[in-house]
Order: sequence, then C-alpha cells, then structure tokens
Amino acid sequence: MINIGLLGLGTVGLGIVEILDKRKDELKAILGSELRIKKILVKNNSKKRSIDIEREMIATDFEDILEDEDISIIIEVTSDLENSYEYIKKALNAGKHVVTANKAIVSKYFEELSSLAREKNLAFLYEASVGGGIPILKPLREQTAINEITKVQGILNGTCNYILTRMFEEGMEYEDTLKMAKELGYAEVDPTADVEGYDTLRKLRILGTIALRGKISEEDMILDGISSITAFDMEQIKNMNSTVKLIGEVNMEDDKFTAVVQPTIINKDSYFSKVNMAYNSIVLIGDNVGELRFYGAGAGALPTADAVLRDVIDVVNNSYGKINPLGKREVQNNNSMIKDKYYLRISEIEEGDIEKLQKITDKILTTAENFTVITKKVFLKDILDLIKSLGLRKDKYFLGRILN
Amino acid sequence: MINIGLLGLGTVGLGIVEILDKRKDELKAILGSELRIKKILVKNNSKKRSIDIEREMIATDFEDILEDEDISIIIEVTSDLENSYEYIKKALNAGKHVVTANKAIVSKYFEELSSLAREKNLAFLYEASVGGGIPILKPLREQTAINEITKVQGILNGTCNYILTRMFEEGMEYEDTLKMAKELGYAEVDPTADVEGYDTLRKLRILGTIALRGKISEEDMILDGISSITAFDMEQIKNMNSTVKLIGEVNMEDDKFTAVVQPTIINKDSYFSKVNMAYNSIVLIGDNVGELRFYGAGAGALPTADAVLRDVIDVVNNSYGKINPLGKREVQNNNSMIKDKYYLRISEIEEGDIEKLQKITDKILTTAENFTVITKKVFLKDILDLIKSLGLRKDKYFLGRILN
Repeated sequence: MINIGLLGLGTVGLGIVEILDKRKDELKAILGSELRIKKILVKNNSKKRSIDIEREMIATDFEDILEDEDISIIIEVTSDLENSYEYIKKALNAGKHVVTANKAIVSKYFEELSSLAREKNLAFLYEASVGGGIPILKPLREQTAINEITKVQGILNGTCNYILTRMFEEGMEYEDTLKMAKELGYAEVDPTADVEGYDTLRKLRILGTIALRGKISEEDMILDGISSITAFDMEQIKNMNSTVKLIGEVNMEDDKFTAVVQPTIINKDSYFSKVNMAYNSIVLIGDNVGELRFYGAGAGALPTADAVLRDVIDVVNNSYGKINPLGKREVQNNNSMIKDKYYLRISEIEEGDIEKLQKITDKILTTAENFTVITKKVFLKDILDLIKSLGLRKDKYFLGRILN
Repeated sequence: MINIGLLGLGTVGLGIVEILDKRKDELKAILGSELRIKKILVKNNSKKRSIDIEREMIATDFEDILEDEDISIIIEVTSDLENSYEYIKKALNAGKHVVTANKAIVSKYFEELSSLAREKNLAFLYEASVGGGIPILKPLREQTAINEITKVQGILNGTCNYILTRMFEEGMEYEDTLKMAKELGYAEVDPTADVEGYDTLRKLRILGTIALRGKISEEDMILDGISSITAFDMEQIKNMNSTVKLIGEVNMEDDKFTAVVQPTIINKDSYFSKVNMAYNSIVLIGDNVGELRFYGAGAGALPTADAVLRDVIDVVNNSYGKINPLGKREVQNNNSMIKDKYYLRISEIEEGDIEKLQKITDKILTTAENFTVITKKVFLKDILDLIKSLGLRKDKYFLGRILN
C-alpha cells in the first residue's frame, strides 16, 4: 500500500480521485501495490462536493498530513502560491516525495525545490505543470542528454487558444469571446494570468530551463498577451491568409538564447494553425533527433490528473529524476537581437505618430479608425521602444509577430 | 565505465557511434559514468567505413562479444532476423541487457523476449523499432497504466509516406516515384517490406499489443500496401479534396479489437494529411488523457540512434521496464465487423464484373480504361471477398478506405 496526501480538491484533485478509483485494480496489478489517497487537505471542510469523501480523510491542517508517517507521496494541486511553496518544502524536508501540477510554483522555485529534492534523494516532479496531459517534460529531459536542443516552441495556454480559435472562426470581438469562454469554463473569473500571457511565460520558463540545461528566469522573457486583439485585427490577419496564436518560444545558438511569449501570426497551412480550441502543442528541435511535435489536451481534470499520476507511478517505480533537470550551462540572453516582421495596429493614432512609424513600415494596411502596418524586418526591442515612446495604452494597440 | 557491445555497423550503428562520440562529456556528466562501445560485430571486416574504428573493437564472431564480461549492454541494429534473434536470446541468457531497433524481431518474438528479459531481471527495450526518433513506446506504456487505450493510429513508414507525398505533390507515377526514392536513399533496393505494408504491420503489432495490454499478432491484421496506386488514383483522390496515406490503426471496444494497415483517404484539412515526406506520426486515444499526437522523423541514422540511446540511458539509470509490456488481457479480433466507405479502382474490368460491383456501389467515378467507384458503407471483408471472387491481380486494382 502506497499512501498519498492530496493537497487540494479542485478540478484536478477530483480528477485524481476519480482515476485512482476507476483504475484501482489495473494500477495494483501493474505497480504491485495499491495506491491510496489517505488524506486530503481542503480549505473549507463544509463545502458540498460532487463525490463522497470519507470524513476521516479530510484535513484542514497541513501538519496532519506532514506528520502522518504512512504518507510517502504528496500531490499538490492547489492553485495557491505561497502556502503551497511552504507545504512542498516542508514535505521534502520531512522525506516525502512531491508531485505538483502548480506551474507558478515550479516556475518561481524551480532551482530551489529541484536542488532540495536531489539533496534529500526524493522526487520533485511536475509533468502536469506544462501541456496538461501531454507527455512533454519527461521526454524533453530525456532528449537533453543526447541532444543540443535549439528550439522549444509551443501553444501552451488553452484559454488563449480557445479565445483566438473562436475569434478566428466566428469573427467575434475579444470581450464577447472571453465572456463565452468564462461561461463554458474555459476561462477563470479573473482571466489575467491566462490572457496576459503569464501562464504561458511560466510554462516556457520551465521548458526553456530544462531544454537548455541552463537557467532562464521569468524576467529573461519578453511577454505580451492577447487581451488587446480585436475582431478588426483578426480580419486583417485572415486577409494575410493567416491566423494568430499565442506562442512561447525559446531559441538557442552558441549559448545565447532568446525567449519570447507573443501573439504570433502564422500561415493558415502551418502546423500550429491546426492546433485549435483548448489543445496545446509543443515543438522541439534537437541536433540529433530533429524536430519532434507533441499535441494533446492542455488542461481539464482528467488529462491533468493523468499527467500527475504518471509522475506518481515514476515515484513508485523509482524511475524518476535520474537525469538532473538543473544543468550547469551558462546561457546569455540575446533577446535584444530578435528581429522579425510585425503586424501593428494602433487605434486613434495622432498625425505626428504616423511619421514616427514611417521608418519601420513596409506596408500600410489601413489608415482610418485603425492605423495598421506591416513592418519591415526590425528589432523587437526597437518596436517595443517605439510603442513606449508613443505613450500608447495597452488597449489601444495590438502587436503580432509575423512568422513566415 | 559502461561497456556496450554493438551488433551491426550500418546506418543506425554509425549514428550511435557518432552521437556517443560527440555527446561523450555531457553523457558522462549526466549519467555519472562513461558510455563506451567496446566491441562491434560486423559481417565483413575488410569493408571500407566512413569512420575510423580501432581494429581491436571489431568482432566477426558474436561469441567474442557474448563472452566479454565487461560488456553489460548489447545494442542490436542489424537488419538481420534469425541470427539476431539468437544473439538477443543468448545475450539475455548471459545476463546482458538488450536494446534493439529491429522491428521484425520485436514483432515476431515480442512475448518470448519480453518474458525472458523479465525472468532474468534485465532490460529488453526497443523504442527505436517504432516511429524512428519519436518517443512513443515508452509514453504509450506509461499511458496504459492510467488509461484504457481505445485507439492507436499512425503513419509508421517513411518510405511509403515519402512516395505518396511526392505522387500527390507532383502527379508522378508510382514506379517513377519509387525509383527516385531509391536514388535518394528513402527506399531500399528491395522495397517490398515497406511498400507492401509489412513494416507498418510489424510496428502496429508492437503498438497494438502494448496499447491493449493483450496480444495482437501479425496474423490478426488486415494488410494492404501502396504498390498498386497510380497517378490516376491520386488524381481521383485529389478531386475528392483528399490525399492518401498508408495508415495502421488499432481500435478497441469492450475487449474486441480491429487492426488494419491500409491506404487511407483523408480530407486535405485533416491532421494526417499534413504529415508528409519521411515523417511519421502516431495518435493515441485514452479514456483519461484524451487524444495525444506524436510527430517526428520516422527513420534516419541520428533520430533512430537517438531513440536507441534513450533506451540505453534507461538501462544505465535502472529506470526501464517497471511497467510490464505484456498485459494479460484476452482480446478478440473483430475485423469482420469493420465497415467503411471505400475507393476502388479496377483496370481492364470485364462487363460481367461491373454487375457484381453494383450492390456495393454508391457512386461511379469513371468507367473508361479505369473503372472507379466510391462504395457504400460496406464490410471490409465483403469487399475483399468480392475482389478475390473477381480474380483480380494485385496490380490491376487499388483499394483505399475513405476516412471522413
């Protein structure tokens, strides 16, 4: 019998309980011993739940779980940041393995928690933190032993991808689409972390740090979200025979990397243009393996729970973490050298500002209410500086990188 | 120091030597000990090679490698069947781990060699046998613990996919495209195993057996290759707004499976239609994880060597094979219930035969030199029986399943 302490009983927590229940016999046959959730930490003990949980399993104090010597594995699936960081640290210090789906924690404390786990000879695993049900972090870690990874690129946020897909397909405005996404459960009540790109940023920080075997931090990345896109922009993008996706991308050459999360305009025939709705996809390039693509459900109770449980199985089978995710490579930020063509729309532009845009402009698309240009191939930093110098509010412009 | 015995120094063997050489320092740092090829078994010792191999490494007698007690891992990358089967068995019996890229052996002796390895507490790994560089067998095995896999579907043969892609893009005849594929190294001098679908069949047998946790043998599958397709067929298929791919597919419902390798006509907007040239892709569906897609180089020295070396790393890290690939599930062949719409072209048809086709025909496409129909939704076995009853030679007709 392997006893688990589950922190959090939200969507993913319920998914874990469900799968462990329905796969009970198979898991016992495959693992040779039963996987049991012994205690569940919840904030609110009186909350109505969709499943029956035995009363003695519920804990409202983490210490009850920490002190339970039967429990060897902690699964952390809260949406909490600071408390859970403390829980994970305490769990590892108390000799318990930790599996988490919490990308915010993994991104923020990757080096600290990974080191602590290795020091204690314990597992700290987080497959579910990137790409939902897609097996990506383990395959990536395995590839880093045999390859120089030169690119990691992905559609990493289901909420943004859902909104952009519906806007593309139905010509709807951003605000209406977001509202619909909330109603259907594809977006949170406060969607900031998703639509402003922070969630993608965290996932890219994890992917990038593993891929390059050197630390990339959140601050190393250029970030832009999708919240200022309009139906007008989507129409222009369609006219370019293209669509737009929020893509996170790390590139590496000679120990120099670039790392950007940005709306990216891609041809309608390109691979990423077919990744729609709440699906995610990650593309890797290694010097030996070549290009690999992974695709699957980027979120959802069961796919995410599936990823968590794959980690748990690795813990039980003692087949985790032999490849240290912390590489020692010194990598240099080369974002100032990023050069591309961009689509830029400015609403309510002033006459003088049009002049300032002239030297970066290749083609003017529209000049009326929305002033829209395709730029020449320019440095991203120059165009960001220019936008800053124009004093534009975020909701008054939209910038998208044009990927051939 | 971990010593390896390498059987075979063809394309993949050379790829392994190349990667181990260029990743020497990284592998040592990551694994904590050096990976070294100590002996290489070759057939012809006097052959000129593209790399320098120290004279004392070369062996022409397998016993020299078998008896070398320093060697703990055997990598088998010959294209040989019966000899290599004996080598693998002897190696396992002598307490050596085995990693192979040889799909013919894995398919033919899957149960026997897997059991032997488990009995001896050794690794028998074969990631490279399916999908070249794509990580697929390990992720699939891991998913089987947590999911009922209901579908495995793939473009599994680079040669066929290369030929079909070029025929589609350039309107070339099959024979001319095959000739070009041979010249460019995408097809072997004797292409039978590839173009007649045997290679896809073997890979699907391996995928299917792992996915269902029950034995599917090569004989369980309906098999058809691509060798009778013509430029005329491709033209008709294009007119259907579609393309054609050789797809291997296993479906499962309530312990009943279907397993087919067959030219499959798919809409130009569908996922598999974008998998072109020598690339492979595999799609899985699990009841918890949902749909997963994997894509990458289906062959080639370095991608295949990459897959072999991932297995070697799992051996070194002792993180292999904790999930038994041999399930105990009793599964029943349900191929007789496969029902689809088909494209059927018959060259030089006789008047009386047209009548026999009538009851399965939904739409006649052409009636001249080539008699071409789209069938109603019919049982595959019925259409195969009908073709048999017409006494048609394989090169006189082409049958393609139409997948919506």
